[in-house]
Amino acid sequence: MIFVGFGFLMTFLQRYGFGAVGFNFLLAAFGVQWALLMQGWFHTFEHGKILIGVESLIGADFCVGSVCIAFGAVLGKVSPVQLLIMTLFQVTLFSVNEYILLDLLHVKDAGGSMTIHTFGAYFGLTVTTILYRPNLEQTKDKQGSVYHSDLFSMIGTLFLWMYWPSFNSAISNHGDAQHRAAINTYCSLAACVLTSVAASSLLQKKGRLNMVHIQNATLAGGVAVGTAAEMMLTAYGALIVGSICGLVSTVGFVYLTPFLESKLHIQDTCGIHNLHAMPGLIGGIVGAVTAAAATEGVYGKEGTRTPSVQGGFQAAGIAVSLGMGLAGGALVGGILKLPFFGDPTDENCFEDNVYWEVPGDEESSMYCMNDSNTKTGTDH
Amino acid sequence: MIFVGFGFLMTFLQRYGFGAVGFNFLLAAFGVQWALLMQGWFHTFEHGKILIGVESLIGADFCVGSVCIAFGAVLGKVSPVQLLIMTLFQVTLFSVNEYILLDLLHVKDAGGSMTIHTFGAYFGLTVTTILYRPNLEQTKDKQGSVYHSDLFSMIGTLFLWMYWPSFNSAISNHGDAQHRAAINTYCSLAACVLTSVAASSLLQKKGRLNMVHIQNATLAGGVAVGTAAEMMLTAYGALIVGSICGLVSTVGFVYLTPFLESKLHIQDTCGIHNLHAMPGLIGGIVGAVTAAAATEGVYGKEGTRTPSVQGGFQAAGIAVSLGMGLAGGALVGGILKLPFFGDPTDENCFEDNVYWEVPGDEESSMYCMNDSNTKTGTDH
Amino acid sequence: MIFVGFGFLMTFLQRYGFGAVGFNFLLAAFGVQWALLMQGWFHTFEHGKILIGVESLIGADFCVGSVCIAFGAVLGKVSPVQLLIMTLFQVTLFSVNEYILLDLLHVKDAGGSMTIHTFGAYFGLTVTTILYRPNLEQTKDKQGSVYHSDLFSMIGTLFLWMYWPSFNSAISNHGDAQHRAAINTYCSLAACVLTSVAASSLLQKKGRLNMVHIQNATLAGGVAVGTAAEMMLTAYGALIVGSICGLVSTVGFVYLTPFLESKLHIQDTCGIHNLHAMPGLIGGIVGAVTAAAATEGVYGKEGTRTPSVQGGFQAAGIAVSLGMGLAGGALVGGILKLPFFGDPTDENCFEDNVYWEVPGDEESSMYCMNDSNTKTGTDH
Repeated sequence: MIFVGFGFLMTFLQRYGFGAVGFNFLLAAFGVQWALLMQGWFHTFEHGKILIGVESLIGADFCVGSVCIAFGAVLGKVSPVQLLIMTLFQVTLFSVNEYILLDLLHVKDAGGSMTIHTFGAYFGLTVTTILYRPNLEQTKDKQGSVYHSDLFSMIGTLFLWMYWPSFNSAISNHGDAQHRAAINTYCSLAACVLTSVAASSLLQKKGRLNMVHIQNATLAGGVAVGTAAEMMLTAYGALIVGSICGLVSTVGFVYLTPFLESKLHIQDTCGIHNLHAMPGLIGGIVGAVTAAAATEGVYGKEGTRTPSVQGGFQAAGIAVSLGMGLAGGALVGGILKLPFFGDPTDENCFEDNVYWEVPGDEESSMYCMNDSNTKTGTDH
Repeated sequence: MIFVGFGFLMTFLQRYGFGAVGFNFLLAAFGVQWALLMQGWFHTFEHGKILIGVESLIGADFCVGSVCIAFGAVLGKVSPVQLLIMTLFQVTLFSVNEYILLDLLHVKDAGGSMTIHTFGAYFGLTVTTILYRPNLEQTKDKQGSVYHSDLFSMIGTLFLWMYWPSFNSAISNHGDAQHRAAINTYCSLAACVLTSVAASSLLQKKGRLNMVHIQNATLAGGVAVGTAAEMMLTAYGALIVGSICGLVSTVGFVYLTPFLESKLHIQDTCGIHNLHAMPGLIGGIVGAVTAAAATEGVYGKEGTRTPSVQGGFQAAGIAVSLGMGLAGGALVGGILKLPFFGDPTDENCFEDNVYWEVPGDEESSMYCMNDSNTKTGTDH
Repeated sequence: MIFVGFGFLMTFLQRYGFGAVGFNFLLAAFGVQWALLMQGWFHTFEHGKILIGVESLIGADFCVGSVCIAFGAVLGKVSPVQLLIMTLFQVTLFSVNEYILLDLLHVKDAGGSMTIHTFGAYFGLTVTTILYRPNLEQTKDKQGSVYHSDLFSMIGTLFLWMYWPSFNSAISNHGDAQHRAAINTYCSLAACVLTSVAASSLLQKKGRLNMVHIQNATLAGGVAVGTAAEMMLTAYGALIVGSICGLVSTVGFVYLTPFLESKLHIQDTCGIHNLHAMPGLIGGIVGAVTAAAATEGVYGKEGTRTPSVQGGFQAAGIAVSLGMGLAGGALVGGILKLPFFGDPTDENCFEDNVYWEVPGDEESSMYCMNDSNTKTGTDH
């Protein structure tokens, strides 16, 4: 799911398909190994050995999910070396954050609204803000999509959509909680598609739909029930949360992303603020409210906390994730600004042929003519 | 499966990829929610509440499958609003038909040859006949495929092919019946591929294969064992059924579809008559024969019916599904003909940029030049 | 997995996408049926009937996997009739080889490093050597990829990557051995991605990555732990094996494939020597070493062999697979050289429109102009 889903979701850029799929593959493979080690040290370290099981692999996958989210913000603007360094730090910080939330605060976050989405998105957004490139509008034509690149991206969307119920229920307890998580996620996702389409049609001129909204906002419903999916949210609750998120996410793409870019210098290539950051926060809040509103006894055997205390701890989890994302992103963004990582020049952003052998570039490419002059070995 | 498989199967149109994937996504998400409600009312309504479980989701998926089939007949010729209304009615009628077959007639139809394919296909064919557009040949160039759109479509084909055994066995009893359903489906599908390829090569000039046949006829074998898959069909029976269906379906594409279009005014965009209607009928008949031919005692504990009586009820199930499809399609087609649903003009059929923001359309599209004059705000 | 993964992996050729996906589909469907019969005769023949279960289907899938591998070597240079004949013989020989290894030598090979990869690859390489075409460089332009064909191919890569752990663990004993096989494969694959990317960047001019390496070499790690995955390889062992294979495979693509083609007349379209032959051999050796090094008692109940004797038998298994591949390939290559199978002429190699109705070829294709003269009905 991580590899196919996120990889293809990001192929919408007309000249950055190789980078999107290939670098996502690279950082996921690297991140999984590093996450296995990190999570092993935090959770299953015994007698100097790390125990690896299927749960470790799922945990590592989740961790890499947050790296893929952050990758979405910096897509096309960083070198592979920068990506690997970002992965190295983000996996470490993710593990620390997860340890604080799950093991110290005893917060519930089965689908990772807080640990994966909120943390990952604000981390990535902070990194991209620090790596702000003022002259990026000169590559504006490359930031668009072409017809078939949008279809490749839809493969990613549908894959993520399809596997999201499994994702949110993967680490729930077997039986009732797992079924509940899958069904709640499914309902939220289905509701989210409808409001995304409606909002996209209403907000665009002439009522036409925008493929970017369909590719992204339709997934926001899955993000937003990440925390609460396994709780007693009920199908109606899931439908309401999904509906709101589809709306919020689409509105974000239309109004908020341009605002963030022009005013706050946040160049968010894939619009992760709309797909992950806002729905992640909503998901955290929904989880806190659901936990606080639970009738005592429903999750009785969990411990000695009353529902409202648990709700407070959930809210604290949101704040910690947000803070870790912002602070960690600032730190890592600062490191990535160091000049020896071979970041691409402004005119080489969103351009595959800096890092890839692109077929047909030598003899016949309509894009290549002006690029061949600017290709000045910025790669390592 | 529903989302990826059917969505991409229909992307073969060169200028309607967004519509195929996007509208399929929209109607599936809407249909699933509506189907959950409908099926809840019919099957699991208790104390004013609907119980939702994994079985409900599978049932809703099956229901939406029949909507996707009908979508194949009208693909490119209806507006999203029309699609949603069609979905609304079809889900309702599907649930009624399913209730009659499974709960009143006690017909067996695990893979839905009757309830999904026969009903869905004749419903869609009737709708498209009533929405007949006499001047559609002027968009003939857009009804073809391009090289990469055919490859996207193959993603859909292979996805459906791969998951069909699970689909046909999803609601069978666990254990033997489920394994039997999966294996029979697999055998039928494998046999079907061979006869489709052979027939395609024999019927085309110069022996060349036609991608449309490979994309569609290869799946007919799965449709045709939908009813009988879990029964004692035996692998040889499945191979024979699959072989016949691959042949029938390919012959249908070559001879029957043009005939239906010119004589009966059935404009069947995806050729669902060949992939779903005929194999669905064959599947129903095979199921009736297999049920009637069963040695008494094989499914002994089912009830008091003798095999031949059960065979008769199975045959009645085919007739009911066919009738419901035709009558329902006539009703819904009549409703969709009402003038205020924003259906596209003839020259805007099979054209994404009526309903979608298509990248690159402003500055450089070879299709766009003549379209920009005809784009007269037919969308809502 | 077989159908989607291998089919799309081979779509990288710019003008052979239909052939890659379509013929792979055809031979897989044919091969599965034939393999079910063959394996039934060898393994589950009782009272004149063949018992088919889920295990038979997995066995048949594995068998077809080796045919798909051999297809990679001859891709674009043979007719569908030749492919079917090759499949017919290769499935037979595969079953004989598997019978010798598993039933006579009692070799362990859960993921098929020997039976599937070593056998399949050397079979295919021998066939393509015998079918050597000296004038193939005149179609050099068609042997390259285009931007979107490489992305389609990445769908295949990621699919295979994702399902490889399931593949290697499919026939292991349930429980510990199965988990071990999945986790070891996962670790090996992840390590392999990193060394492939590093090697690709180091070996290309200007440090650019080559998409062919990413598509193929990243999978070598899965091949190489095929035999040992279920054994006590440990995660570190898997990481080491994966790292080495990513390196070996990429180096093979850069240096060995051109050498094999110019000196030994092995025209290996997909580079299966790098992805399957070498990693398959490595996998066999790793399996033999792991078996020989096992502490006695670990797999104690298997029988009366000591670990070192088992290691010897494993080594014998490698030799038998290699010999069967070479001898079988020579035999079948000789048969396929017979002149009445309608093999394409040299200038029609890697060209879809010999065997397929390619959309848009009549009016506007930049490739078609010179082809239309040479299209002289070489197809059957």
